[in-house]
Amino acid sequence: MPNKLDLGAMFRSRSIAVIGAAKDITSLPGRPLHFLKGFYQGEIYPVNPNYSELNGLTCYPSISSVQAEIDLAIVVIAAAKVPEVIRECAAKGVKAITVLSSGFAEQKGRSGKRLQKMLKEIALKGDIALAGPNCAGLIGVQNGVVATFISGLDRGSILQGPVSFVAQSGALGSYLFAAAQDAGVGFDNWVSTGNEAVLGFHDFVSYFVKQETTRTIIGYMEDARDGKAFQTAALEALAAGKPLIILKVGQSKSGAKAASSHTGALAGADKVYSAAFEQCGVIRARNVEDLFDLASICGATHYPRGPRTALMTISGGAGILMCDRCEDEGLQVAKLKNETKDALKQVLPSFASVENPIDVTAELVANPDLLLKPMEITLADPHVDSLVIFLGLQSSNGLRLASLIIEAAAPTGKFIAVNWIAAPPGAVQKLRENSIPVFSDPARGIRSLGALVKYVQCRKLILSKNVAPRFESMPGSKKRTTGTGTSRRKLVQAQAIIQLARQEKRKALTEHEGKQILELYGICTPKRRLAFSAKDAAKAAEAIGFPVAMKISSSDILHKADAGGVLLNINDPTEVKRKYEELLSSVSAKYPMAKLEGVLVEETIQQGIEVIVGAKQDNCFGTVVTFGSGGKLVEMLQDSAIRVGPLGRSVALLMIKSTKVFKLLTGYRGDKKRDIAALVKVIVSAARLAEDLSENLASLDINPVLMLEKGKGAQAVDALFVLK
Amino acid sequence: MPNKLDLGAMFRSRSIAVIGAAKDITSLPGRPLHFLKGFYQGEIYPVNPNYSELNGLTCYPSISSVQAEIDLAIVVIAAAKVPEVIRECAAKGVKAITVLSSGFAEQKGRSGKRLQKMLKEIALKGDIALAGPNCAGLIGVQNGVVATFISGLDRGSILQGPVSFVAQSGALGSYLFAAAQDAGVGFDNWVSTGNEAVLGFHDFVSYFVKQETTRTIIGYMEDARDGKAFQTAALEALAAGKPLIILKVGQSKSGAKAASSHTGALAGADKVYSAAFEQCGVIRARNVEDLFDLASICGATHYPRGPRTALMTISGGAGILMCDRCEDEGLQVAKLKNETKDALKQVLPSFASVENPIDVTAELVANPDLLLKPMEITLADPHVDSLVIFLGLQSSNGLRLASLIIEAAAPTGKFIAVNWIAAPPGAVQKLRENSIPVFSDPARGIRSLGALVKYVQCRKLILSKNVAPRFESMPGSKKRTTGTGTSRRKLVQAQAIIQLARQEKRKALTEHEGKQILELYGICTPKRRLAFSAKDAAKAAEAIGFPVAMKISSSDILHKADAGGVLLNINDPTEVKRKYEELLSSVSAKYPMAKLEGVLVEETIQQGIEVIVGAKQDNCFGTVVTFGSGGKLVEMLQDSAIRVGPLGRSVALLMIKSTKVFKLLTGYRGDKKRDIAALVKVIVSAARLAEDLSENLASLDINPVLMLEKGKGAQAVDALFVLK
Repeated sequence: MPNKLDLGAMFRSRSIAVIGAAKDITSLPGRPLHFLKGFYQGEIYPVNPNYSELNGLTCYPSISSVQAEIDLAIVVIAAAKVPEVIRECAAKGVKAITVLSSGFAEQKGRSGKRLQKMLKEIALKGDIALAGPNCAGLIGVQNGVVATFISGLDRGSILQGPVSFVAQSGALGSYLFAAAQDAGVGFDNWVSTGNEAVLGFHDFVSYFVKQETTRTIIGYMEDARDGKAFQTAALEALAAGKPLIILKVGQSKSGAKAASSHTGALAGADKVYSAAFEQCGVIRARNVEDLFDLASICGATHYPRGPRTALMTISGGAGILMCDRCEDEGLQVAKLKNETKDALKQVLPSFASVENPIDVTAELVANPDLLLKPMEITLADPHVDSLVIFLGLQSSNGLRLASLIIEAAAPTGKFIAVNWIAAPPGAVQKLRENSIPVFSDPARGIRSLGALVKYVQCRKLILSKNVAPRFESMPGSKKRTTGTGTSRRKLVQAQAIIQLARQEKRKALTEHEGKQILELYGICTPKRRLAFSAKDAAKAAEAIGFPVAMKISSSDILHKADAGGVLLNINDPTEVKRKYEELLSSVSAKYPMAKLEGVLVEETIQQGIEVIVGAKQDNCFGTVVTFGSGGKLVEMLQDSAIRVGPLGRSVALLMIKSTKVFKLLTGYRGDKKRDIAALVKVIVSAARLAEDLSENLASLDINPVLMLEKGKGAQAVDALFVLK
Repeated sequence: MPNKLDLGAMFRSRSIAVIGAAKDITSLPGRPLHFLKGFYQGEIYPVNPNYSELNGLTCYPSISSVQAEIDLAIVVIAAAKVPEVIRECAAKGVKAITVLSSGFAEQKGRSGKRLQKMLKEIALKGDIALAGPNCAGLIGVQNGVVATFISGLDRGSILQGPVSFVAQSGALGSYLFAAAQDAGVGFDNWVSTGNEAVLGFHDFVSYFVKQETTRTIIGYMEDARDGKAFQTAALEALAAGKPLIILKVGQSKSGAKAASSHTGALAGADKVYSAAFEQCGVIRARNVEDLFDLASICGATHYPRGPRTALMTISGGAGILMCDRCEDEGLQVAKLKNETKDALKQVLPSFASVENPIDVTAELVANPDLLLKPMEITLADPHVDSLVIFLGLQSSNGLRLASLIIEAAAPTGKFIAVNWIAAPPGAVQKLRENSIPVFSDPARGIRSLGALVKYVQCRKLILSKNVAPRFESMPGSKKRTTGTGTSRRKLVQAQAIIQLARQEKRKALTEHEGKQILELYGICTPKRRLAFSAKDAAKAAEAIGFPVAMKISSSDILHKADAGGVLLNINDPTEVKRKYEELLSSVSAKYPMAKLEGVLVEETIQQGIEVIVGAKQDNCFGTVVTFGSGGKLVEMLQDSAIRVGPLGRSVALLMIKSTKVFKLLTGYRGDKKRDIAALVKVIVSAARLAEDLSENLASLDINPVLMLEKGKGAQAVDALFVLK
């Protein structure tokens, strides 16, 4: 988005024109004017040559005939006429437009796409902030800007609050708007992005981050479109301490299944999104209610500093239930100090439990005031980061209990939430008005708290350590130069190897070629020689030292072991010769169409733990790097970490630590520790290599990388480079 | 439960006495009478020597002074007086009692436990169906029996329906009752089980299964207490086609962490519950809302025959969202027939999508009648097992849409559910009245359908194949005799080995002893000999054949490999001798307190895939059998199947098939197929062995079992028997 576009003119506009306004308030073109009359305090200019007056307002034949400055134009006319109207708006100096009309790039055929291209060019030339086309409009709650037709507004009122919402679907965005309001989520802004001809999802996020009245941004996403721009906006939100919560749909695994490389299979499109989100501290909502729950919990006055959670309950069973969920959601059931337990004993009935979960017992029903002291005592415990209270029913005492909770919460800097089953509505409202999150199901409350704690920890990590992605577009970052003359020369060599394969129209490099590139990037590979005859192979084996491995060399066979093209532990020259012939004949019998270049004779690396390091190009996010349990079982184990590049050593180390295989590498059950430092280098080099060669390289598997003892390095035993 | 106990006298009682009734309707003893006056049509007899009249009813000084037959007595007096009153009730011929008083076994100290024992004996002697003590009472909605004090009744009405509810917590049971009613779940019966002195969770399940008015049973469970009795009741429910849905709490993993065997670690208490549930077709609810959602979906008129789901939506985004969830919940997005798609094209707008998910578009807002035809066409497709419709808002057309859905549903035998965001309440009510489940969140709707499909499939499997657990208590099953003279003799031999270890106060058997028992049960083990000197070891190795494995023999060292007590691939007698001394001295240096019996010299089994077969005794469910990926990484891989015994071959095969390692055993990526038939035998034998030796054997790990090529069997390479 060009910086000069003025999104304030959209969401805080002081004057609005409705181009194509109509009389029938049940019709799509009639609704925006109808809503504006109900909510908006600024100037409204209906534009339609067929009327001189509409709903009591003067109606203008064209935008240019309006004798006043216009911040925002709502366009609801036939698609074909839109470009001309945008041009008129540009001439008139209109700053912002939302195009509700459909019939653009979302349609089959070229004409819609052409129209959208025109519209984009005119808007950019005229410095117009344009939302849509084919969108449901937008809402700026502060100024009553209701530039939309959504039925979510039919209820006649909007619950104001600190949440701004970016929706990549008009209809669903409208329903979610209404349901969120029902769930007590108050809004600052709402926007439907439509076809995103000019302004995209990330532009709105970036704008909302800068609004003082917005504390939390929620989104419904189908496609980030520009991954780097999205991540940049997400990092802005993270830096500003404004949680960005996204419900991302489209998790179909079918894409991943068809992948030709292990890396492709491990890092399906949806997993790449999850990784990209996590790297930038985006909270991913699991479903619709989760989106609202998270929005609600992010509205809390204080965020928890850590995972140590005190649970206070009116029912023992609910206490156990919350404990169960804490374990699942990464929270710790806080260990209370002895002083805390002693103090609780003084104020609770003798049969109450003063161990966490603290059971205040059903005495609370008769005596609601019993809640205050235990809350104060528990919140004062330095081992407690947050307090979650469970209540049920209490129709007669509900408001009193809510007041007590608010009273106890006020002086503390700690996070407090309430799980309240079958709660009296008044009590819920009172708590929410005081920024205390309330959940109707204890599992949802604990899940939301777990997500919030993870957000806080993740934010701290990303902002304090050097692990945030660095993009060229970000302030302070610069394009990585290819560096010294040496590394430049290496890149040229690597590119030459790939060019050769491309000239031969190959889909992949041979293992030998791939390993040459790995070596150029400083990744160790076993000693090896490509042999073109049995005699040659035996000589190579003697030079390398026994036992050797023998592998068929062919860029037509991507997974050699599966094809029976790999033989291990060959112990003498005679066997090498015999196996050479066997290998060629058995593979060519199986794959008569495959071009076999010879046999790779290779040093045997003993006793390594197998891991995989991989990289691929993602359409949306660019270079994606994977690390995980490797070897033949890699796709079965599904133990991998995924990150969007570029990445440095600290991120590589985090990736390693997040996998199960990490435990093996650090000396599992009496085994020796492995060379993690060498592995970090392999991951960083693979990431850099993939970035450097991104134009031609679709994906890269280094599988297995054999992890040797600490100090002895890591060896890339196989390598598969798949070309674009 | 003795068969003659009359639970009908509880839930369908025609006359009720309230022993300890009080005037104050806000007090616990005052509430049952208050509720009965509001809901109950039968005879009510307050009993309290302090009043002659209570709330307009004659009050009696004692139960014996009531001159009428009494079906049910509600007891709300001090604990100490309860046994005497029960005795009086028995003399009077009262058939059922619920004891609301607390102060029994739930209390610290002996007196409460003694009181409960007395109460139990008197009740059993008098053939009284007794619920509690320390419970919140019960409700039989059909007859207005409200023998309880729960605040969930304060609202003054009960939504009647086909669901009966068993709660192992009074307070939470009350809140869940209220919240379920808010969620539209109508009840037939409700009971709080309290301390379960006489009647337990399973007794109520068993009774509700037999009630025509109950279609679904839901439960809140903390402890099944008698696992076999519970499973038996659950199988009754399954056979009757009445879904049993349980929210089970207490998943803490701490127990599993402390386990001394791999099997103990794999099969923690909570996982055993999940396995026991699955074996009997019990649907496990994940949380409170899930419990209600499942109760609601189980009320549908027709259950889906399979997983093929048609999705119909008013918003494209919601369609994707539902698709995502289908994949996660084991449902298939149905492939529509071409005829169906062609027919849909005829009735939908040109820009609609006739591929599943079928997007009927926002045209539906203006024209609700558009919904009928597409529904009819889709439901007629033989590739479609069920239909899920997504709607949002529609405040003006909601009722019309509901009517259309009901109309289309009527003639079809297929399952239909609606996900409706921000729905108009009237429309939801109308659909529910017609047994069409409605969900406020699409993810919840799809998750519930997934659970229902799994239930249907699971029920079919359990009832048609021979995979249901068979208990002695079940009709038609008989105690397995130890069979022929041979197998009897083997059992005696196995017991003798264990007795020896017990006499020596050992906590475990040595590997050699364990393997002897395995052999008695027909499980193959490698050739081996226990050697007591280096020379002896070398001789043994020569007899067995090289290479050999050497393992320290000690019942004090449970995990030999971790202790450095296992050496593999020893190739000649000299090495054997040297290693013998090394092994003894290195292990005794590490574990100076361990008694070392010598060294086990063993045949090397090559090229097997490592699996684990295990068994343990569970306090609640008895013998539990595990199978999974084995070897050193077993606890890291967490790839295992768990079943409660006894079990036969078909269950063993299902266990194998449910793990990831199954893929390896069937020839993964060019590998050879393994001997699954032999593995089935190992699992069945291990289960039988554990059952036979259950008195002394706490747990058994056979890890690894090496899986050889098809026809070549499976070898138990290591065995750990931990004694009680």
